[in-house]
Amino acid sequence: MITVLAGGVGGAKLVLGLANLLNSEELTVVVNTGDDEEFYGLHVSPDIDTVIYTLAGLSNEAVGWGITDESFRTLGRLKEYGMETWFNLGDLDLATHIVRSKLLKDGLSLTEVTECLAKSVGVEHSILPMSNGDAKTIVHTEVGKMSFQEYFVKNRCEPIVRHLEFGGGDVNFPSNEVSSALEESTALILSPSNPYLSINPILALSGFREDINNFKGIKIAVSPIVGGKALKGPAEKLLREMGADVSALGVARQYVDICDVFVIDKQDTELTNDIKSLGMNVVVTDTVMNSKQDKVTLAKAILELCE
Amino acid sequence: MITVLAGGVGGAKLVLGLANLLNSEELTVVVNTGDDEEFYGLHVSPDIDTVIYTLAGLSNEAVGWGITDESFRTLGRLKEYGMETWFNLGDLDLATHIVRSKLLKDGLSLTEVTECLAKSVGVEHSILPMSNGDAKTIVHTEVGKMSFQEYFVKNRCEPIVRHLEFGGGDVNFPSNEVSSALEESTALILSPSNPYLSINPILALSGFREDINNFKGIKIAVSPIVGGKALKGPAEKLLREMGADVSALGVARQYVDICDVFVIDKQDTELTNDIKSLGMNVVVTDTVMNSKQDKVTLAKAILELCE
Repeated sequence: MITVLAGGVGGAKLVLGLANLLNSEELTVVVNTGDDEEFYGLHVSPDIDTVIYTLAGLSNEAVGWGITDESFRTLGRLKEYGMETWFNLGDLDLATHIVRSKLLKDGLSLTEVTECLAKSVGVEHSILPMSNGDAKTIVHTEVGKMSFQEYFVKNRCEPIVRHLEFGGGDVNFPSNEVSSALEESTALILSPSNPYLSINPILALSGFREDINNFKGIKIAVSPIVGGKALKGPAEKLLREMGADVSALGVARQYVDICDVFVIDKQDTELTNDIKSLGMNVVVTDTVMNSKQDKVTLAKAILELCE
Repeated sequence: MITVLAGGVGGAKLVLGLANLLNSEELTVVVNTGDDEEFYGLHVSPDIDTVIYTLAGLSNEAVGWGITDESFRTLGRLKEYGMETWFNLGDLDLATHIVRSKLLKDGLSLTEVTECLAKSVGVEHSILPMSNGDAKTIVHTEVGKMSFQEYFVKNRCEPIVRHLEFGGGDVNFPSNEVSSALEESTALILSPSNPYLSINPILALSGFREDINNFKGIKIAVSPIVGGKALKGPAEKLLREMGADVSALGVARQYVDICDVFVIDKQDTELTNDIKSLGMNVVVTDTVMNSKQDKVTLAKAILELCE
């Protein structure tokens, strides 16, 4: 079995490729929940939803979030009730949050709820929230601290980030299902998601780094930075603000002691030796995933490394 | 001040007429919450919403419930998640239930929440839930007991009703706001709502009948039955199943000791003496409210009785 750590869009793309090649017993996806947030009393898990919607063929790839053919009628009325509506909850998407919140209220864990939601839309692969705890990411910026979604959506990633605080710490643990998946896996893949905002919240869970240190299989990370640019989202800006190189090398430095193989794009071939000097093997391939075929091809290349 | 007891559609029509003639200090509407129900963890108050939507000009008069120009996209996806979707929650309507549930979760009373919702859509008159307690109506039928909405919507009022159980009893009281409104009022109006399903749940609240007995002003009821037929809903069927006359007289008998004046339609003129013999005065007028003018005209006739 292979376990993948994923955030939102970038992770979901690779997961879609892998899910096309592996059956449900062979793939587990551990998803960041540091960006979960409650809106109007409803529990929203944006990264989990992006992964589920992507695997279910529901996702709106044009905008990179939510469900295709979405509408925003409920949100329009919420605004008329004086609610804050900076987080774009669509009518179709809302059903997910309503069901999730209802099942959580009934006493199910986020892991159980996620399984229900995934199965309902025909997703058979195991999608696991990183934790059943409340492990929110707090973004400390020059204009004050805020939740991930306040930073990401409300403030469009504009505030300069000073540091990130992860809700993992001593309090929140990976779920039992996540720990079991790691134990049973022969490969761990860090998907090309934002290292600071999507992968680090998972790594910050209490005991998770130790689990990785004890992990016997191969550990592979895929760079979300290609040619010095983030394919999506604020990774570029964040690397700069955190004082890191805005490059695949900058990302690789985050994963020292975490991964054995670092996968970079052909555009970044010249970084090979620098990354190798961090103590990792480097694999150079096409990592930009536009078409479905791109996703499957990258997944296939990664699976070959696992064998 | 005038206090009106109201259920859904019939009550809302008269309330609209009254609201056109009285300012916000002169009219308080006490609304049945016996048909409140939770769907997917969201608190739905159908009668309150019908009154608010009607006063706000939002209601879908063609179907008799909900908001005009409604859509059902969230509900469609809730169905795909395996949820029961027999209660038609529209996308626009859902915003109301989301806000209500959120504010209740925040600790506001249903009375406070209702005031927020009403004010947000420009309704200045005081719309009061009959109680802040959980005073649900249980319908005991030949096929078992069920909540009001299960009876009314899921089973389309088809099961034969044996008796009705009101959640008022010893536990639930009228809210302080309802009691204060009664104390300050010079007239109490029982709107032409279903006596069994809309008015009796209010009357069943602990202490409410005593409050009415002590009430010094005039008490006026309007028949929801005209020419032996209910203008809307299952009042006719229910009168029959409860062994009552399917007529304005049958309704009047429910209100013995409750009202001083019973208002009937011109079509029912021949019932005048029978109703008078119950110890009430009878006023004969046009009670069928189709147009807005009908509503205002009936409201005006009632207000003349109050003077």
